[in-house]
Amino acid sequence: MSELRHDPLTDRWVIISVERGARPIDTQPSEKKKSEFCPFCPGNEDQTPIPEIYAVLKDGHTRHSVLDRHYIHPNWLVRVIPNKYPALQPEVFLSREGIGIYDKISGLGAHEILIESSEHSVEIPLLPLQQVVVIFNTIKLRMNDLEKNHYFRYLSLYKNKGESAGASLEHPHWQLNALPITPSEVARELHTSKVHYDKKERCLICDILSQEIKSGERMVEANEAFVVLAPFSSRFAGELLIAPSPHFHCHSFPGIDDKTIEMLAPVLQRTLARLMRKYNDPDYNITLHTAPFFQRQKNDHGKTIEEDYHWHLHIFPRIAKIAGFELGNDCYINTVLPEDVAKTLREAAV
Amino acid sequence: MSELRHDPLTDRWVIISVERGARPIDTQPSEKKKSEFCPFCPGNEDQTPIPEIYAVLKDGHTRHSVLDRHYIHPNWLVRVIPNKYPALQPEVFLSREGIGIYDKISGLGAHEILIESSEHSVEIPLLPLQQVVVIFNTIKLRMNDLEKNHYFRYLSLYKNKGESAGASLEHPHWQLNALPITPSEVARELHTSKVHYDKKERCLICDILSQEIKSGERMVEANEAFVVLAPFSSRFAGELLIAPSPHFHCHSFPGIDDKTIEMLAPVLQRTLARLMRKYNDPDYNITLHTAPFFQRQKNDHGKTIEEDYHWHLHIFPRIAKIAGFELGNDCYINTVLPEDVAKTLREAAV
Repeated sequence: MSELRHDPLTDRWVIISVERGARPIDTQPSEKKKSEFCPFCPGNEDQTPIPEIYAVLKDGHTRHSVLDRHYIHPNWLVRVIPNKYPALQPEVFLSREGIGIYDKISGLGAHEILIESSEHSVEIPLLPLQQVVVIFNTIKLRMNDLEKNHYFRYLSLYKNKGESAGASLEHPHWQLNALPITPSEVARELHTSKVHYDKKERCLICDILSQEIKSGERMVEANEAFVVLAPFSSRFAGELLIAPSPHFHCHSFPGIDDKTIEMLAPVLQRTLARLMRKYNDPDYNITLHTAPFFQRQKNDHGKTIEEDYHWHLHIFPRIAKIAGFELGNDCYINTVLPEDVAKTLREAAV
Repeated sequence: MSELRHDPLTDRWVIISVERGARPIDTQPSEKKKSEFCPFCPGNEDQTPIPEIYAVLKDGHTRHSVLDRHYIHPNWLVRVIPNKYPALQPEVFLSREGIGIYDKISGLGAHEILIESSEHSVEIPLLPLQQVVVIFNTIKLRMNDLEKNHYFRYLSLYKNKGESAGASLEHPHWQLNALPITPSEVARELHTSKVHYDKKERCLICDILSQEIKSGERMVEANEAFVVLAPFSSRFAGELLIAPSPHFHCHSFPGIDDKTIEMLAPVLQRTLARLMRKYNDPDYNITLHTAPFFQRQKNDHGKTIEEDYHWHLHIFPRIAKIAGFELGNDCYINTVLPEDVAKTLREAAV
């Protein structure tokens, strides 16, 4: 059974999950050949774990928590299933324990896979717009459902595209991890955002976006609702940030409404299309940062917490390797100017 | 010219170095073939940048700051040269500047290469012991020299072995980066160590080591002077920590004496030999954590600072990929129990 362990030296939690070590790896490093068997393709539903957590069907209906494989037909647009090799599991008894100087928590959480579409090798920019809307609606629905478990503190959503970005299966998919902790990177962003808000009564990310919109030199695109930019201190060549514009400030992704999802979907499609065209279809990670669950729960009693964080998506192309300097220092060497990235991507025809 | 940029959201500094983007990559991902031309091999000294910063010669003499290529003969055991594609450079005017909500620092620092030996494909475990002693003596000498520059705050020492660990040249080498900041990861360790010391008047790392020695389950080896263990909250499969034992507590690597270097060298050789044998010669990073320069300078005025940090080497085998979960959360999923790593490595014949 997996567990979370706390490092007293760096205040970082690590998930130790021996079960997950058994997973097969079928992405191909150099030639991107179609793997022979794909458990995520339609027709192979019996090779994925049950229950099927959720599916949006082609006829507009949905399926919820289907345990009997006979009812899992391949007529779906999007499927959510348990990860076959989960890092964390929901059926675990929560225990928090100190072991001398260390701390550990039982591996309570969730690890779900969202299969992006029935197409084995069609990436987001080439999916129909409505399919991308369905993906985001599904993410929202799963997050709102997982939030009902009061042991969960944070829901991490991410996508790994390609072998060098850590994908072990080629068929496009997202992963959702419910965690009994708020992870370090998010905790850091929450802290700096809170300190900024306490002092200035303004959202830190709104301030960053406003400065970027004014300067324009790192902007890729912006509309009424969303801003896409190459961050000033990008860790990765081609790194991008997508965030609700200051007029649409919002701390928590699962609170997003239908109209905003309809504005987000084409923005993500265009942004990834720019990356594919200008940086030779790179492997990448997408990760969502949003307010932790307990922070949303506290919002019933006050408004401030809603105002001091601002959800966003980070896109990290994996062109350069992460080496000893980066791992040892948590300081990155990036060889491409964010201003050049923005200019290059602005000029991409999409 | 490169620069350091500060991210107000994560308090992380990033080095933006366009020049470094020009470097060639000659490590081979799958077949580890010997590259045709190696600038680090003896006889090719004219292909490396001048000045040669330092060299230990076979006759026991040393060379210092040699600008004239005619004096750079291939009779060396260890060479230190400037990185041809430096992330930071010493000849830069230091400027620290705010740009609205952002901060930046000019790319002042140093980026040196320490060529481990004249052998193109002999790794540390197979070098003569005396050669490893010379490597550590050279590191110490370079750190003490770089510390004289009062603009430098921290010296990062690391080694990348293999393509997946970010090495761009195959010939074994270390890198030294002098930085005008203390990087986040080290700052975090300094902070937790200081909080612990302020409360308990004991070194945090000494406390960790004492608990590990007592339990024994994560110990790989220990002698009077050094402890090698698989950390309780290892981020990577096969991760290891080498630190001076509690009896030899020391905050700063460059203060190490000759006798201690002679005890460290065989410990590192055995530890890497264990990894090579039991984990199929993995790519890895080694990184040194030591007190920053300004902290040593303050030591003239009090003793506490000397006592609250404890230098150590992290070894990170690069078997699994770093994916979106890790990058987005700074939370790692490790599929191998540190207790199993320790047991496996203890049993390796070395």
